[in-house]
Amino acid sequence: MRAYDIIFKKRSLQELTKKEIEFIVYNYNNGEIADYQMSAFLMAIYFAGMSDTEIFDLTNVMAKSGDIMDLSSYGGATADKHSTGGVGDGTSLIIAPVVASTGIWVPMMSGRGLGHTGGTLDKLESIPGFRTDADVSEFIGYLKYAGMALIGQTQEIAPVDKKMYALRDATATVESIPLICSSIMSKKIAEGSQTLVLDVKTGSGAFMKSYKDAKELAQKMTAIGKKFGRNMSALITDMDTPLGNCAGNSIEIRQAVEILKGNIQNDLSELSLEFAAMMIFKSKKAETMEAARQTAQNQISNGKALEKFRQAIRMQGGNPAVADNPDAVLPKAKKSIKIKAPKSGYIAVMRTRDIGIASMMTGAGRRKKEDRIDHSAGVLFFKKTGDEVSEGETIAELLYNSSENIDEAEILMREAFIITESKAERPQLIKEVIS
Amino acid sequence: MRAYDIIFKKRSLQELTKKEIEFIVYNYNNGEIADYQMSAFLMAIYFAGMSDTEIFDLTNVMAKSGDIMDLSSYGGATADKHSTGGVGDGTSLIIAPVVASTGIWVPMMSGRGLGHTGGTLDKLESIPGFRTDADVSEFIGYLKYAGMALIGQTQEIAPVDKKMYALRDATATVESIPLICSSIMSKKIAEGSQTLVLDVKTGSGAFMKSYKDAKELAQKMTAIGKKFGRNMSALITDMDTPLGNCAGNSIEIRQAVEILKGNIQNDLSELSLEFAAMMIFKSKKAETMEAARQTAQNQISNGKALEKFRQAIRMQGGNPAVADNPDAVLPKAKKSIKIKAPKSGYIAVMRTRDIGIASMMTGAGRRKKEDRIDHSAGVLFFKKTGDEVSEGETIAELLYNSSENIDEAEILMREAFIITESKAERPQLIKEVIS
Repeated sequence: MRAYDIIFKKRSLQELTKKEIEFIVYNYNNGEIADYQMSAFLMAIYFAGMSDTEIFDLTNVMAKSGDIMDLSSYGGATADKHSTGGVGDGTSLIIAPVVASTGIWVPMMSGRGLGHTGGTLDKLESIPGFRTDADVSEFIGYLKYAGMALIGQTQEIAPVDKKMYALRDATATVESIPLICSSIMSKKIAEGSQTLVLDVKTGSGAFMKSYKDAKELAQKMTAIGKKFGRNMSALITDMDTPLGNCAGNSIEIRQAVEILKGNIQNDLSELSLEFAAMMIFKSKKAETMEAARQTAQNQISNGKALEKFRQAIRMQGGNPAVADNPDAVLPKAKKSIKIKAPKSGYIAVMRTRDIGIASMMTGAGRRKKEDRIDHSAGVLFFKKTGDEVSEGETIAELLYNSSENIDEAEILMREAFIITESKAERPQLIKEVIS
Repeated sequence: MRAYDIIFKKRSLQELTKKEIEFIVYNYNNGEIADYQMSAFLMAIYFAGMSDTEIFDLTNVMAKSGDIMDLSSYGGATADKHSTGGVGDGTSLIIAPVVASTGIWVPMMSGRGLGHTGGTLDKLESIPGFRTDADVSEFIGYLKYAGMALIGQTQEIAPVDKKMYALRDATATVESIPLICSSIMSKKIAEGSQTLVLDVKTGSGAFMKSYKDAKELAQKMTAIGKKFGRNMSALITDMDTPLGNCAGNSIEIRQAVEILKGNIQNDLSELSLEFAAMMIFKSKKAETMEAARQTAQNQISNGKALEKFRQAIRMQGGNPAVADNPDAVLPKAKKSIKIKAPKSGYIAVMRTRDIGIASMMTGAGRRKKEDRIDHSAGVLFFKKTGDEVSEGETIAELLYNSSENIDEAEILMREAFIITESKAERPQLIKEVIS
C-alpha cells in the first residue's frame, strides 16, 4: 500500500477501505508519510467528500492514535457535551456542575478560543489559581473527587488530530464536514463518556453559517457516536444572536455563577438547562425529558449545582470564593466604552460575528494562537435582538485595558446593532433536535 | 499576502490574480512556502481548475523562475516541437534533422521516458558517445555549429517546474489540464523558439486517454503560446496504436536512420514529415502547407536530412557512423521471443499501453526514475492494427538481455493483439489540427 494510491483513489472520487484510511493516518502519525502528502489528501477529501463509512473509519483510526479512556470502572453514568462554538457560549460552565450534581460523572475536555469565538478554558483561567493543564492522572483525580473535571485536551487524546488540524489550518481545509466530524468525534470517543450531547450552532456568529451544513454535521456526528455505542443527541441552535448577557472571560464566569445561583434567567441559562436535561435523560437518570428538565432546574434551586461548581473550582486550584462573590475574586477591566442606541425602535439584527471580533479586539480573544488573553476584557449586552430601545439608551459596553484595537472594536459594535421601527423577534433558540 | 489565503481562494473556486499566482510560485521556488502548502494548492487546482488567464499567469511565472533563452540574435527562424508522449514516438529523431536541414534553427530540449512511454534522450543515448547533459553554453554551441541540438532540460529552464512536478508526482496531481499545460508551456516558452508545434496524443497508449481532454489541452497550450507571441500549431494524433515498427531505444534510432535514408515509409515517417512541414510552414519558409510538405520530403530524398543527422550526432559526441550503418554501431539484444498470431484474421486492436509496459519490462523503459535503461531491448512490430495475419505468423518480437520480467512482458504481448475475422481499420493518424 502506498500513500500515493490512496490520494489518487480519493481524488478520483472513489470510496476508501478501512485499511487504506488506517494506513494513511497511522503512517502520517508515525512520520512515515510526509505533510505534503497528507495535505494533498485532506484537500482531496475537501472536494471529494467521504461516505459515512469512511468518516467512521477515519474517526476510529484518529481516536486510536492515542489513549481511549475507559470510564466504565467508575460504575456510574458518564456524560459530556461538545459545542461547535459561538459568541458568549458559556454553557459548559453551567451544564457541568448541574449534571455532575445529580451524580453523573462529567469528564470534560475543552478547547481554547480562536478568532471570534470564546473558549471554555480561557474563561475558567480567569479564576485566580484555576489550572486546566492537567494530565490524564490528574484529570481522573479531579473527576473522582469532584465528579467533574474541566481541562484541556491532553497529549494522549487523539494526538494525530492535533497534527492534522495544524495542517488543515495552514492549507484551508478546515471547513470540510468529514474532517470536522472526524476531528470532533475522534476526541470525544477517546474521552470515553457514555452519553454525548452536541451543540451544533448555525448563523452569522457560528462556524457553520448555513443551516443545511449544520444539520448535516449534526446528523453525521450523531450517527458516528451511535456506531461507537454511545448515547447521542444533538441540538441545532441559533448563533445569529450572541448567547447570554456578555462575551468575554471573567464576565462570563460571573454570569455563570449568577445563573447557578438562580439570579439570572436568559437564553444562556435556558440552553444550558436544556443540554443538562438531555444529558440526564440520555444517561437514564430521568424517565422523560420533562422530568430531566425538572431535575436540572431543581439542582439550581436547591443550590447543589452551585456547590458542585465551588467544589470543582477548589479541586482544580481555583479560588472557590468565586462561587460566592465573583466580583471580589475575578479581574476587572479598567476602561469601558458605552454603545448607545442611535435611534428608538427594535433591535432586528445583532451582527454576531462582528460582535465576536469586537470582543476579541478588546483583548478577550485571540487572533492568532500565540496571542495572550486579557481575562477581564469583553463586551456586555444590555439589549438583544427583539428588545425595544430608546434613542441614547446604552445597549452594550466594551470593557478593556489595552486601547490598541479599541477604536476598531467600537466601530464594529456601533454598526453591529440594526434597529428598525417595526417590532422584531429574536430567532428561535433551539431549531432542531437530532437523536 | 499569505499562501493560506491563496489556497483558500482557489479551493473556494475563485479566480486568482496574477499577483497571487506569482506570490505562491515565486515563494515556493525560494523555499519560503512549504511543500505541504503547495501540494494542497495543486490539489485545489486539480479540482477547481483554472481560467485561461490564470493558466497564462502560472505559465509565465514558472517560465521566469529560470532563464528565458533569447534566440533572436541568431537572425533566423527557430522552431521546436513537443509531444505528450506515446509508445514508439520517435518523431523528434526525424523532425529535427529534416527541419534543421532547411536552415531553420532547431533547439530541442527533451525528456526521459517514464512508465510506458519512451523518452527521446534515452533513445539518443543508445548511440555510443552521444551526450545529452549539456549546459546552456554547450547547447548554444551545438546549435550554432549543427543548426540543431537535442539535449535534456538544463537546470536553468523553468526550475520551479521540476520542484512542482516532483510534488505532483507524489500527490496524484499530475493529471490536471491547467498543471500539464503550464508545466509544458513554461519550459517551451523559456526555451525560446519562435515556432512551436505540439503533438497531443490520445488513446489507450497516451497520457490523455480521452479525446475531449486532449483537445482541451491542445487548445489551451496553443492559446498560451500565441499570447506569448509564438507561432503555434497543434495536432491531435492517434495513440490507440503504437507509432512505427518498434518501441525501444537503439531499435528506434535504427528505424529513424532508415526513414531519413528514405528506406521506410510508415505512420511514424508520415507523422514526422507532417510535423516537419508544419514547422517549416509556420516559420514562413514555405508559402503553403503543401509546399512545406514537399520541402520536407525533398530533404529526405536529397539526403540533406540524413547529413544533418550525422552532423548533429558528431557534434554531440556520438559515433556518426550510426547514420550510415546503424547495425554496426548500435547495441543489440542477445535474446528474443517471437509473438505469433494465435489465429488468422485481422488485427482489430493493439493494446498500446500494455505494449508500452511490455517494452518497459524488456528493460527498454523505467518503472521508477532510478531504474537503468537497457538501450538494446524493446519490441518489434511486424504487423499492426488493420493488417491481415495468418495463424502462426510472427506478429511481434521481444528483444531483451535480462529475463527478470520477461515472462510477464510476454503474457502482456500475447494478449495485446485482438484478432477478428472481419476486416479492421487502423485508427486515423491525425485526428484534428488546432492552430
